[in-house]
Amino acid sequence: MNERAVYDRIRVLGPVSRPQLAAATGLSKPTISLALADLERAGLVLSVGHRTGNAGRAAALYEIRPEAGWVIGLDVGREWIRAALVDLSGEIAVREDVPARAGGVTALIDRLGRIVDDLAAAAGGEITNIVLGTPGVHDADHRRLLLAPNLPGWDRPGVVGRLAERLPAPIAIENDIALAALGEQGYGLGAGLRHFVYVSIGTGIGMGIIVDGELYRGARGAAGEIAFLPMGETDPLAHAPGTRRHGMLESVASAPGVVATAQRLGMSGRITAKRVFDEARDGDEVAVNAVVHEADHVAHALAGVVALLDPELIVLGGGIGGHGADVLLGAVRERLEAMTPLGPPRIEVSPLGDDAVVLGALATGLATARALVFDRAIAGDRSA
Amino acid sequence: MNERAVYDRIRVLGPVSRPQLAAATGLSKPTISLALADLERAGLVLSVGHRTGNAGRAAALYEIRPEAGWVIGLDVGREWIRAALVDLSGEIAVREDVPARAGGVTALIDRLGRIVDDLAAAAGGEITNIVLGTPGVHDADHRRLLLAPNLPGWDRPGVVGRLAERLPAPIAIENDIALAALGEQGYGLGAGLRHFVYVSIGTGIGMGIIVDGELYRGARGAAGEIAFLPMGETDPLAHAPGTRRHGMLESVASAPGVVATAQRLGMSGRITAKRVFDEARDGDEVAVNAVVHEADHVAHALAGVVALLDPELIVLGGGIGGHGADVLLGAVRERLEAMTPLGPPRIEVSPLGDDAVVLGALATGLATARALVFDRAIAGDRSA
Repeated sequence: MNERAVYDRIRVLGPVSRPQLAAATGLSKPTISLALADLERAGLVLSVGHRTGNAGRAAALYEIRPEAGWVIGLDVGREWIRAALVDLSGEIAVREDVPARAGGVTALIDRLGRIVDDLAAAAGGEITNIVLGTPGVHDADHRRLLLAPNLPGWDRPGVVGRLAERLPAPIAIENDIALAALGEQGYGLGAGLRHFVYVSIGTGIGMGIIVDGELYRGARGAAGEIAFLPMGETDPLAHAPGTRRHGMLESVASAPGVVATAQRLGMSGRITAKRVFDEARDGDEVAVNAVVHEADHVAHALAGVVALLDPELIVLGGGIGGHGADVLLGAVRERLEAMTPLGPPRIEVSPLGDDAVVLGALATGLATARALVFDRAIAGDRSA
Repeated sequence: MNERAVYDRIRVLGPVSRPQLAAATGLSKPTISLALADLERAGLVLSVGHRTGNAGRAAALYEIRPEAGWVIGLDVGREWIRAALVDLSGEIAVREDVPARAGGVTALIDRLGRIVDDLAAAAGGEITNIVLGTPGVHDADHRRLLLAPNLPGWDRPGVVGRLAERLPAPIAIENDIALAALGEQGYGLGAGLRHFVYVSIGTGIGMGIIVDGELYRGARGAAGEIAFLPMGETDPLAHAPGTRRHGMLESVASAPGVVATAQRLGMSGRITAKRVFDEARDGDEVAVNAVVHEADHVAHALAGVVALLDPELIVLGGGIGGHGADVLLGAVRERLEAMTPLGPPRIEVSPLGDDAVVLGALATGLATARALVFDRAIAGDRSA
């Protein structure tokens, strides 16, 4: 497919001339001209001016038509629903964050449907596809979510199908932290790395794994579910109502685990993980002590990650992993030094903050969209 | 490269005719005939008789010439050096196991050199390449082994280069358990699986990881070094002389860990891991109790593997993981059930026994050898 090769080169090289395309693809200039005519007629490529070179003759420049496709990314988190709309150039056209409200399946489908409708109205064309990130594991066989206790009712078979029916374009469901790893690859510290992991520590705990530049999902889509990493210590939340039976790492090291630790160490009043980290910054002894415990848990988990996966880089994100890193990271690095025989890999805080998941949804959605619009436009063109 | 396509098809399809090769490659019959002539002249392919079809005319059959290449696989273990010689068909021509002797770098290089010389003398042609499996991590930049305490002196830069100089063919060094995983893929339970792990529990502990059908080595070649998985309990060997500072899983769950546990539980006399498992089979209370502890450790480690990697299959091997599985595996499975929210994956004992590493060395060595002999023969043919 010459059109495909030319289209892909135009997308990567930006405004580009016929001679440049011939050099980049190895195709002859007449073949390039034919492919460009097809791509322009299909609305995928447009001419955007001229460049004058040494030879004096002006060469027409081509670019992909950004409006040929539109992608919506959604991050359905515990506290916020974050949404964004991009065109094919990847430029964000609309960004919308709304608080997540408690409610059942129908309420959430309705809410997501209206957010998508809002964004779709702002798009300069039909929505090509949608990518949604959520905690848990998407069981595609039964169109439901597993291990997502903050989305009550979404473990019933078929519920993802109901959401898909409500939306104006095909939807892909991914684990939110897997998307954050893809966001880090597309827009953050993971660009160009072969093997790295993104570890999110906040209300929950999870990990996204990039192996050979690709997201590694595991046999059942449950790779990176480090919430269930067994810890050697008694579960501080084991007797709290509503917690998971096998919280393991998550129950000791997530925000509720930090709160439980601080309480056990003698902190009084209304405790939040944010308060523990704020007071540790101010030197409060109990808070500092709670953060030391947290550093132990995180180092223990990362030592397991290093022993199994030997990544080039560990990116930390989430409420604690990201915002608490200033008081946490030094202690984690020091402990890891003693727990990793080859020394720990590079550990950095994600520069993407709370946008990692939605950026990952856009990055993976764009890759799909570019293939989809090409297939639809060229196939449509051929059958006409 | 038409010769390459034809050669690869002949290798996979076995004795095969020109019409079959044309159908399998999509190449024209004249092109096939030209490629076959080239391959025969280069000594890579030979004609092996005829097949008579319905049309009545006999078709000549072609096969790769097994003697066109010879591969040696070596497994340098703690107790045994295992070696094998194969031709390109993968058929084992010579198999040799000798006890590993204590000794320095020079003695081991000499010993390996003589084993290779022996095998090379039995080959019907030059040795194409050698693959050697050893505990630890091959630091290719400095040509040395890291984390291989049973090979004293091999952590000095350049030592692997000295071994390479002694040998008659290029050598690749791989982690032994990584090779065992490749052996399992080539000859055992891993055939055709996308994601699986091979976990060896014996004198030491290690894991080989197959992701998307390929060996996953990690950024520094240290992926799967689960010996260093942190365990929540006090290291029973921490005060024993000569043990690693950070034994972690290995120090509690390897054979010396089992011995230490049995001793702590009150077993007297000369204790070996084999004795503990033998007496547990006979129902001895202390031994059964020690095996229960071992099952806890192994389940803890495998729960971490499942949480991070979500493999389709866990293959157990090694002195304890393989030979002790009859008393160990039931308890491990039961504990894992409570530690894995989606349930444990399939867990099986390797059918390859002590041959897993050497078979893996042959499997990966053969893949390299087939490419090498083709490149040398066809390049040589062209330059002649």
